[in-house]
Amino acid sequence: MKYPNNIKKEYKKEINYKNRGMELEYLINEACLYYIENGLAIIYKKPTPIGIVDVDYKNGAVIHKAYFKEPSTLDYNGIYRGKYIEFDAKECKSKTSFPLSNIHPHQIKHIERVIKHGGIAFLIISMNGLYYLFKGEDLLAFEKNNTRKSIPYDVIKKLGYLINYNYNIGIDYLKGIDQAYKGVGYVEKNKE
Amino acid sequence: MKYPNNIKKEYKKEINYKNRGMELEYLINEACLYYIENGLAIIYKKPTPIGIVDVDYKNGAVIHKAYFKEPSTLDYNGIYRGKYIEFDAKECKSKTSFPLSNIHPHQIKHIERVIKHGGIAFLIISMNGLYYLFKGEDLLAFEKNNTRKSIPYDVIKKLGYLINYNYNIGIDYLKGIDQAYKGVGYVEKNKE
Repeated sequence: MKYPNNIKKEYKKEINYKNRGMELEYLINEACLYYIENGLAIIYKKPTPIGIVDVDYKNGAVIHKAYFKEPSTLDYNGIYRGKYIEFDAKECKSKTSFPLSNIHPHQIKHIERVIKHGGIAFLIISMNGLYYLFKGEDLLAFEKNNTRKSIPYDVIKKLGYLINYNYNIGIDYLKGIDQAYKGVGYVEKNKE
Repeated sequence: MKYPNNIKKEYKKEINYKNRGMELEYLINEACLYYIENGLAIIYKKPTPIGIVDVDYKNGAVIHKAYFKEPSTLDYNGIYRGKYIEFDAKECKSKTSFPLSNIHPHQIKHIERVIKHGGIAFLIISMNGLYYLFKGEDLLAFEKNNTRKSIPYDVIKKLGYLINYNYNIGIDYLKGIDQAYKGVGYVEKNKE
């Protein structure tokens, strides 16, 4: 994301406060930017929800005390060919299974709602060096039909859609959406 | 928005750092919550973008230095009957005209993109004690065809759609969407 105007220069060295998943996020953010610049989709990472306790307005609104809030939705949302898109990026360190503790119960509820309203919701899971699009529908079905607290890698390989890394784009997840969802076509011509 | 889990209780007294527009925002947030709870739409206010400079991880990840970023998109987004929705809430103190300085150039560009991709983008303008839905299309057309730096109230009255305040809901903007955009119907039955 670009915030071209009114950014205070002295704060340039913004820190990476959330190391886990940062590389995956970086490659997805790159793709988001590519898609926006090429008129393919408008998908942004939502800002991290933060609760603000104390602000110093005398010196240009510097926040002196704040804390991280728990997100109740997924990290990325936007529009692709008229369709509402929402997803989360999950880096999985285990090679054998994806722990469901990575997804909060209110996020599960949210995925269910988005699908019910006609939107597209999924996870991008980075695992064993590969990127998978795992549909919200499959996630909900797995949760309902299993008592397991993690999704075996075999299930992710079977139900998930491999997403390619393209060094010009990043993680090219629109192609994954095209594969996973019918009727949503990737049209290269549709440039701005 | 509700963040039911993992919220640190001691930070309960979160401050209102942005007084302007707070009442309008409150009434829109109430409506968002009503719509979610009644299965009518899933629309959230995005978190305020914040740049984090310093975090104390030893005492439960307390942010000690941060600053407000300029948003490049609109404040609210989500899905309503399969349609991508994005809007901003603007409280206008002037009784005669709405200053376009309220909307940043990158937000104008963003509105243009959302519409181009088949989404619905608009402003909710609170002015002279009333709430108007002002379509993104009308905003873009006004900007292109006028050199004025504000939209006269007469134009807002003529092109905007009055949104009612309902004390059970808040600012009932879905009804405004139904009026302003064809083919997007408000279906009371569609409850969860």
